[in-house]
Amino acid sequence: MKKDRLIYLPLGGAGEIGMNAYVYGYGPAGKERLILVDLGVTFPDMDTSPGVDLILPDISWLEENADRLEAIFITHAHEDHVGALAHLWPGLKVPVHARRFTARIAEMKMDEAGLPTDVIHVHAPRHPIEAGPFRVQFVPVSHSIPESSALVIDTPAGRIVHSGDFKLDGNPVVGEAFDPVMWHEIAREGQGVRILACDSTNIFSTHPGRSEATLAGPLTEFIAAQDGMVVATTFASNVARLKTLAEAGRAAGRSICMLGRAMKKMITAAAETGVLTEFPGVVSPEEAQHIPRENLMLIVTGSQGERRAASAQLSRGKYLGLEMREGDTFLFSSKTIPGNERGVIRIMNAMSEMGVEVVDDRGGLYHVSGHANRPDLEAVHDLLSPAILIPMHGEHRHLREHARLAQSKGIASEVVTNGMMIDLTGPAPKVVEHIEAGRRYLDGNVLIGALDGIVRDRIRMALNGHVLITVIVDEDDLPLGDAWVELMGLAGRGRSGAALADQLEAELAEFLERASAKVIASDDKIDEAIRRIVRQVCMEEIGKKPEVTVVVSRLVAE
Amino acid sequence: MKKDRLIYLPLGGAGEIGMNAYVYGYGPAGKERLILVDLGVTFPDMDTSPGVDLILPDISWLEENADRLEAIFITHAHEDHVGALAHLWPGLKVPVHARRFTARIAEMKMDEAGLPTDVIHVHAPRHPIEAGPFRVQFVPVSHSIPESSALVIDTPAGRIVHSGDFKLDGNPVVGEAFDPVMWHEIAREGQGVRILACDSTNIFSTHPGRSEATLAGPLTEFIAAQDGMVVATTFASNVARLKTLAEAGRAAGRSICMLGRAMKKMITAAAETGVLTEFPGVVSPEEAQHIPRENLMLIVTGSQGERRAASAQLSRGKYLGLEMREGDTFLFSSKTIPGNERGVIRIMNAMSEMGVEVVDDRGGLYHVSGHANRPDLEAVHDLLSPAILIPMHGEHRHLREHARLAQSKGIASEVVTNGMMIDLTGPAPKVVEHIEAGRRYLDGNVLIGALDGIVRDRIRMALNGHVLITVIVDEDDLPLGDAWVELMGLAGRGRSGAALADQLEAELAEFLERASAKVIASDDKIDEAIRRIVRQVCMEEIGKKPEVTVVVSRLVAE
Repeated sequence: MKKDRLIYLPLGGAGEIGMNAYVYGYGPAGKERLILVDLGVTFPDMDTSPGVDLILPDISWLEENADRLEAIFITHAHEDHVGALAHLWPGLKVPVHARRFTARIAEMKMDEAGLPTDVIHVHAPRHPIEAGPFRVQFVPVSHSIPESSALVIDTPAGRIVHSGDFKLDGNPVVGEAFDPVMWHEIAREGQGVRILACDSTNIFSTHPGRSEATLAGPLTEFIAAQDGMVVATTFASNVARLKTLAEAGRAAGRSICMLGRAMKKMITAAAETGVLTEFPGVVSPEEAQHIPRENLMLIVTGSQGERRAASAQLSRGKYLGLEMREGDTFLFSSKTIPGNERGVIRIMNAMSEMGVEVVDDRGGLYHVSGHANRPDLEAVHDLLSPAILIPMHGEHRHLREHARLAQSKGIASEVVTNGMMIDLTGPAPKVVEHIEAGRRYLDGNVLIGALDGIVRDRIRMALNGHVLITVIVDEDDLPLGDAWVELMGLAGRGRSGAALADQLEAELAEFLERASAKVIASDDKIDEAIRRIVRQVCMEEIGKKPEVTVVVSRLVAE
Repeated sequence: MKKDRLIYLPLGGAGEIGMNAYVYGYGPAGKERLILVDLGVTFPDMDTSPGVDLILPDISWLEENADRLEAIFITHAHEDHVGALAHLWPGLKVPVHARRFTARIAEMKMDEAGLPTDVIHVHAPRHPIEAGPFRVQFVPVSHSIPESSALVIDTPAGRIVHSGDFKLDGNPVVGEAFDPVMWHEIAREGQGVRILACDSTNIFSTHPGRSEATLAGPLTEFIAAQDGMVVATTFASNVARLKTLAEAGRAAGRSICMLGRAMKKMITAAAETGVLTEFPGVVSPEEAQHIPRENLMLIVTGSQGERRAASAQLSRGKYLGLEMREGDTFLFSSKTIPGNERGVIRIMNAMSEMGVEVVDDRGGLYHVSGHANRPDLEAVHDLLSPAILIPMHGEHRHLREHARLAQSKGIASEVVTNGMMIDLTGPAPKVVEHIEAGRRYLDGNVLIGALDGIVRDRIRMALNGHVLITVIVDEDDLPLGDAWVELMGLAGRGRSGAALADQLEAELAEFLERASAKVIASDDKIDEAIRRIVRQVCMEEIGKKPEVTVVVSRLVAE
C-alpha cells in the first residue's frame, strides 16, 4: 500500500496577484482526497486580453478529479477569491463553505447564474468542518473586507495555516481585529503549525502596516475643511472604509449619498449578515439633488478608473442627476493597482478640467493597505513558527522574496507557482508533478481557453488591421470578375496616393488573369497567393502587413 | 492699421506629458510672424492606439500658415521634443535651430528620412538668432540629456523665457549646471521677464529636486557589493547617468558593455559633439562573453519595459550571446512612467524566475528626476519674477496646479491647453481663438488622423471580434447559394453547442429565402438585414455583438 501524502497545488494566485485557487490533498499518491481554497478571477486588459470579460483559472485538472474533491472553502468575498465560483462550480458540484458575509456574496453570484444556493454552507469562526481527511476552521483575520478569514486545516500530516489575505489590524473599524493571543494558542495546540501558506503581496513594503482606525481623524478633518461637494471613492467591498468615510461626512454636517451598484450590494450584504450594525443614514440621488453642495458628500465606485463606474461617469458629466463643479473636491481613498494608472489619471484630468480639486492618497493619510507588510509578515512567522512556509498570493518576485525571508529565519521554504504539485509530507517541500494550469477567459457568455487563438486573432487585427478578399470562381473553374477588397482598420491611401483597395484590386486582377488552372482549382493555393500579394502591396504602400481573410466562392453547375 | 500682438499657441504638450509643440507669434492679428518651439512625439498604447507606431501633433494650422513661420527651435533631443521633426518638417520647410548635440540627433533623423540636413543650424549658448520679430537665445539649463536649453525670446512686446524641460542641478555630471547668477542677469536685463512659459511635469513633487551627482556614491557602493554580473538600465539619452553607471562599474573593477542601439547612438552623438569628453572604455558583447560575470557590467536599454529593447530581451533569454543567471543583479536606474507598469513588472518577474536580484529606484538612491519639483519651480518664479506665467508641458492637473501656485504668488497665470491661442500683449493672458489641435498617427509609414476611424475600427475588432459574410446574387437578382460566414476573433461554439458559423449560415439561409426582391436588389438593405441577424444570433449564442462586414457580389449577364 502506498504511503499517504499531503499535497499542495496552486491553480491560480501563485505567480500573480489575483485569481486565487489553491488545492490541498491528503491520501495515497494520485488518490488524495482534495479540498479547494478560494476560486477567484483576475481582470483582463487591452494589451493581453482585449474584449474578454473575466479571467478565470483553468481548473481542468480539478474537474477531471472532481470525484476526489470534498469541498470548496472561500476565505473572503473579494472577486479574486470568490469571483469564479458561479462560473466554475458547475464543473465541480461540491459543497461550498464560508462565513456569513462571504456566503451571502457567494449566494448572490450563484443565484444570478441560476445555480443552487443551498450548496453554500455558513460557518461560525473556529467551528470545525470535516472534509474527508481534513478538519478545517475559519479563523478571523483583519483585511479590507468584512469577515476575512485564514483557514486552520488539520490533517494527519499536521496542521496547515492558510493565511488568506490579511493584515495585522488591532482596530479594523468593521469586523474582528487580528487577535495575536488566539493565533498564539493556535500555534501551541498539539504539534503546532507545520505549514504556513502565506499572503505575499506586500512583501516589498518595508514599513509596518497601519490600522484602518488611523484614517478617521485625517478624513474627518479633511472633509470638514472642504467648501463644495465632496466626492470620495474607494473599493466597494471595503465596508469599513465606507463607514469611516460616511461618518466623517456626517461629522462635517453632510448628507451621504452612495453611487454605484457594487457599493450598495456590499452595504446591503453587510447589513443583512449583521456585519454592519451602524451606518449613517443615506439619501437617494434624487434627494441629493436638492441638498446644497456644501452639505453633501457622495461615496462612489470606480477607484481604479473603471470606465463604467460612478467616478468615471461623474468625470464625464451628469450621473443620476448629479454633477461635479468648480470648487468641489474628489478624494481617492484608495491606491491605484499597477496597470490601472491610465484610467485613474484620465479621471483626475477630467476633474481638473471641471475645476474640481483632486486629492489622492499621496502621503498615506487617506488610505491604508489591507495586506501585511514585510515586518508584519515577520511577526506572523514568529507567532506561528511553522516548519515550512509556502509563499502564496503574489507575483513571482513577491513569492521569491517571501521564500528568501523565511529561509533567512531558518524556515524551510520554496517558491511554488501555479501548476506545481508539492509534497508537504517530508521536512521540506518537494515538487512531485507539474499540472497544466493556465487561464480561461469568460468572453461574452462563453468560456474559452487563453491559448485557443481567439484572443490572439483579435490582438492581430488590432495591431495589423484586417483585409477581406472575395473571389468568385465559375462552373468552369475560371475566375468570374475581379476580386473584391474590403479594408477594416487600415489607412485608405498609402505612399502612391491611390486608394489602397483599388491598388489591391488591380494587383489581384492581374494575378487572377495569369494564374494557372491548377492554382484556381485549389482553395489553398488561391488563398496563399492572394495573401502574399495583399501583404506585399500593403507593405509597400502603407508599411504594414495586415491580417488577410480570403473567401473563394465556387459556382456549381445546376 | 491693426495693433500688433504677441500670441502663444500650444499644438502639443499642454494637457499631456509628451508631444511638445509650442507656437509664438508677433504682428497684426491673423498676420503674426511665427516661430515653433519643439516638435515632439508621444507613444501609442494598446488601449487607445493599437498598431500605431508614433503619435504626433496635428499641425494642420501651422501647415496652412507655413508662409508665416520663420523657424523651428528645438530645446533638447528628447523624443517628445524632437521626435516628430523628420515626419512633419516637409509640411513646414523652415530653418531649424538647435545646439550641437540636439542638432546632431535632429540631423540623424532628417538623414534617415532622406531629408536635407543643411536646414539645421547649430548655435552656441546665448548666441542671438533673429527670426522675424523674434530674437532668440539658447540658454543652458540642466535636465536629463546633454545641452538642454531654455529659450530667451525677445519680442517687441517684451521678453519671454520658455523654460523647456529643466531642473535645478548645480552639478549635473555632464553638461552645464543650472546657473542662477546668469538667470538673475537675464531677469534684470532691460524690462526683465514679461512671460515665463514653464515646465509643469513635477509640480506635485513637494520635495526639492536632487542633483545627478548624488547618485555616484550610492551606485558605486551598490555595484561593488554585487557578486554576479550587474545589469543596469536607464533612459538611453541620459548620458550623464550612463557615465555615472559606467564609472561606478569601473570603480568596482568591472568591464562595461553597452547593449541597445539607442544607447550607442546617444553616446556616439555626445562624443562627436564634444559633450562627452571622458567615458570609460567599453567592451563589445563578443568580448563580454569571455569576461567572468563578477567582472562584468552591462548597461542596457529598455527601462520602461519596451518589448524589443535589451532589458526585455535579456529577461526572455540570451541576447547577443549574453544571458542572465542566478546570482546576477538587475538595476532599474530609472522611474517607471505611468502607464508602463505592466511591461516593467513583466521584466521583474521574468528576472525573478531566473533567480536574478532585481533592484529598482524604491528609496530614490539610484535615480533622480530631470524635472524641477514644486520648490524648484517656486525658486525659478522668484528668480525670474515674470509678469505672466504660462504653465507648459503637463497634463491638465499639472497645468492647473502650476497656474494656482503662480496666482498665489501674485503672478498672472492661466491654464492654456493645446489649440488655445492666447494674446499675451495685455496685463493678463487672453484667449483669442480655438484652433483644431488633435493628433496624427504614424501608422506603418502613413500619417493618419486620430479621428479618421481607422484605429477606432481596430479597437472594435479587438473588443468584439469580426464576422465576414459573403452573399452572391445572380443575374436575375436572386441569391445564389447560401451566405458564407467567416469568424475572426470569436468563439467557435456558444450556448447551443453547435458551431457558430453553421448557425449563422442556417439563419442567413432562412433570411435569404424569405427576403423580398426589393431587399435583395439593394446592397444597403441586404447589408443592414444581415448585420442585424448576425449580431442577434451572436448575442444569443456567445453574448457578444461582433463587428460585421457584408460583401454582396452581384453577377451580371455577360
